[in-house]
Amino acid sequence: MSNTQALYDDFKAKMQKITDVRMATAVLGWDQETYLPEKGAGFRGQQITTLSSIAHELSTEKALGDLLRELHQRHDLDAVPKRNVDLALEDYEKHLKYPAPFVAALSQATNASYHAWIKARKANDYQLFAPELANMISLKKQEADLLGYTGHPYNALLDEYEKGATVAMLDTIFGEVKTALTPLLQQIAGRPQVDKSVLFKTYPRDKQWAFGMDLLAAMGYDLEAGRQDLSEHPFTTSFSPEDVRVTTRVDENDFGNMTWSCIHEGGHALYEQGLPASQYGLPCGEAASLGIHESQSRLWENNIGRSQAFWEHHYPLLQALFPENLQDVPLTAFYHAINQVQPSLVRTEADELTYHSHVMIRYEIEKALLEGSLDTKDLSAVWNQHYQQFLGVKVPDDVQGVLQDIHWSHGSFGYFPTYSLGSFYAAQFMAAAQQQVPGLDAGIRAGNYTGLLQWLRREIHAHGRFYTSNELCKKVTGAELQFSYFLDYAKAKYGEIYKF
Amino acid sequence: MSNTQALYDDFKAKMQKITDVRMATAVLGWDQETYLPEKGAGFRGQQITTLSSIAHELSTEKALGDLLRELHQRHDLDAVPKRNVDLALEDYEKHLKYPAPFVAALSQATNASYHAWIKARKANDYQLFAPELANMISLKKQEADLLGYTGHPYNALLDEYEKGATVAMLDTIFGEVKTALTPLLQQIAGRPQVDKSVLFKTYPRDKQWAFGMDLLAAMGYDLEAGRQDLSEHPFTTSFSPEDVRVTTRVDENDFGNMTWSCIHEGGHALYEQGLPASQYGLPCGEAASLGIHESQSRLWENNIGRSQAFWEHHYPLLQALFPENLQDVPLTAFYHAINQVQPSLVRTEADELTYHSHVMIRYEIEKALLEGSLDTKDLSAVWNQHYQQFLGVKVPDDVQGVLQDIHWSHGSFGYFPTYSLGSFYAAQFMAAAQQQVPGLDAGIRAGNYTGLLQWLRREIHAHGRFYTSNELCKKVTGAELQFSYFLDYAKAKYGEIYKF
Repeated sequence: MSNTQALYDDFKAKMQKITDVRMATAVLGWDQETYLPEKGAGFRGQQITTLSSIAHELSTEKALGDLLRELHQRHDLDAVPKRNVDLALEDYEKHLKYPAPFVAALSQATNASYHAWIKARKANDYQLFAPELANMISLKKQEADLLGYTGHPYNALLDEYEKGATVAMLDTIFGEVKTALTPLLQQIAGRPQVDKSVLFKTYPRDKQWAFGMDLLAAMGYDLEAGRQDLSEHPFTTSFSPEDVRVTTRVDENDFGNMTWSCIHEGGHALYEQGLPASQYGLPCGEAASLGIHESQSRLWENNIGRSQAFWEHHYPLLQALFPENLQDVPLTAFYHAINQVQPSLVRTEADELTYHSHVMIRYEIEKALLEGSLDTKDLSAVWNQHYQQFLGVKVPDDVQGVLQDIHWSHGSFGYFPTYSLGSFYAAQFMAAAQQQVPGLDAGIRAGNYTGLLQWLRREIHAHGRFYTSNELCKKVTGAELQFSYFLDYAKAKYGEIYKF
Repeated sequence: MSNTQALYDDFKAKMQKITDVRMATAVLGWDQETYLPEKGAGFRGQQITTLSSIAHELSTEKALGDLLRELHQRHDLDAVPKRNVDLALEDYEKHLKYPAPFVAALSQATNASYHAWIKARKANDYQLFAPELANMISLKKQEADLLGYTGHPYNALLDEYEKGATVAMLDTIFGEVKTALTPLLQQIAGRPQVDKSVLFKTYPRDKQWAFGMDLLAAMGYDLEAGRQDLSEHPFTTSFSPEDVRVTTRVDENDFGNMTWSCIHEGGHALYEQGLPASQYGLPCGEAASLGIHESQSRLWENNIGRSQAFWEHHYPLLQALFPENLQDVPLTAFYHAINQVQPSLVRTEADELTYHSHVMIRYEIEKALLEGSLDTKDLSAVWNQHYQQFLGVKVPDDVQGVLQDIHWSHGSFGYFPTYSLGSFYAAQFMAAAQQQVPGLDAGIRAGNYTGLLQWLRREIHAHGRFYTSNELCKKVTGAELQFSYFLDYAKAKYGEIYKF
């Protein structure tokens, strides 16, 4: 045992060293988005590249592989250490599947593709991006072959972002998005619409900021183990469970912009603050998957932050802060305003229902591109046709259409589905929480989320990567991920709002 | 040549990689002092340690030494590349002089000594620190032996901070501090004293901050290549010449606290911003020495920032900002207030004249401890006796006496003299600037420092470490460092203020 323990300590030290470098890279990234002076960008980019390559060298060095293989054969490790070793070995061996020439080609293609995307956006012409995208897809097919897969080649790529997710599983789920969500959206479209103009009055910057900070504190975000700053795009970043930072932006003429970004990033941050600090540097100290991460942000943003119960407590405080805008607006009108459903062109601005049609379209397209049933030259036309069919909107140009997201230019195929999975996990988790957390609704109505947060900490956060998404979902909710939880939630909530 | 060029490029890439890691460490350090949430300190300390050890590994690896030795023998390098290679080799070989067991012992002693110093300060009892200090001095003697020296062992340690500085040189300079500055201080003490109470009225925080930012901008500090933030102790840190940051602190009841910290750190920052970006990572992209660095901060802080000419432009702006405090205070009274000379107990709070008596005392003590003519157990008594003799103040206790500075607990022997050297270089540089910069005084009176800054950039900043301090001083001023420039400056300025 003592020998195994010594090897495990060595493994832990190596992993913590790699993580220290990665976390340092994250600090440089945070600074880049918040406080970096304009002229500092050049050397900062170089410094980040150097740290990333050091982390890569350390995480692929032969000594680590030897140690991992030795530890993998030991039978005297407890469950968590054993899982750490197995996951670390899996990650290590995945790295080895990428030959250096392929990594170089992918890196070059990503750079070319990103610049082509920028150029195409400027010219508002998808065709300027198409050839580089075609090259990227051919590399992604190679990547799938290098990684290996059973079934569809897309499975190999999905595995990068959501281990265990497969085309079979997503076909079922996004099939239901098509067959069940599309008619629900049509039903809503046929009802009298809600008015959200109250959100676009003038909300002074300082007061918005103060309100956002109060919301974060109310959620249970520990401001002694984190902070909020301004950045162009809101994000969450973690340097350890004891230093998890969020950013937001404030638009004086759009109250929702900052508010739900605070709640969304706050949800991500609560997850990171809830990861076990004792597992720093080890897989069981990391988030389970992108989908589970997104489940935490969306649970807070939508299931909590767009619920009437939540605003029963916070709306009077908001009215007191902005009486000139809100004193004559009843809670119900505000609650309806923040839940307007309206098909639109741009994913990042979509409401919580139509959002999944945007993702479903991307999922279908990624799958088709990977299997070769869709050619990149036809992509813009297919995109526009899907938007007409599933969202009923006419795409006026490529910038508002197929060129809107950065993901494909970065080679991120398989990422989009995790956004929807997040919402669907969130609905299923909330259903479980309603059964398992005593006084959950009363707590929310009173602005007290302690019961919910403790439950999330215990059931989800504390485990890190010990369970896969699937295993975690089954353990917490008793069932694998099912779209029905989200559909039930959507029907109940929007049936009440839109009165059908 | 092409072969040499390829080797040089390889050298440059290795050096830049090391520097990227060091700069990243500096970013983590900056964040630690400015924005780090309370609970983040533990993992942050670990991350900084990891990066430091990676930088150390990289800068001592055998391949770098081999490359340096090979390049050192080449005869087809231009002057700057050649100097970069020679200095890098010198630094590299210095590292090799430290055997691992000695490094470990020193690191352990530093830790023990620092904690003993903290404990002794809490108890206000130097004797609790004495045994650890004795151990530290024994290690510093060993270090001098390892490094090698001619003449006094202290020379080896001085070399770490101010290459080329020797006991012979410092004995001459601090001898003059004793023989010429001490009587000057006595002369001032015999004259009617000036009143500085105007500096301790209430100066609201936001207005002070705005004034400090204006001063930095007026000096020529590029705010697109830097920024100012708040921290407990003001400092300057650089991540490249294109990202040089300063910090300050604001005391509403002490106007001078922030103002001269801004000017002092601004002087350091102008130097860093003036280093050649093309030499990033290489010795010629680094500051010449601590003494030269301090010459830049003190030139701005004292020679400029405490001159009547400077305030001819800025004082009316200051009066307009704080009319309730200053409208009835004439420029001359303000100028006298900011130049009060008053012997005191604590170095960091000393005026620009008595400051050098504080440093001279430390220099004499360090030298005596190193050569063994002073025993650590007698240090407190000797300290107090020196303060009585040279500053005429009675030290009431160890916290305000021998325990006031952190340096010795860190093992920094040879650092203190660079503070005074900075002021003496500054006086000599200013005398040269007065001869070489057309319209210097008129510019300062008009709040225009372009001529001065361009001169500093060209004569000092642009060279990095190409010249040693001595060489640089001779090149810029035509003579080696001489105390007489400072003495002349002091006599003229304070003779006028104190009317003798």
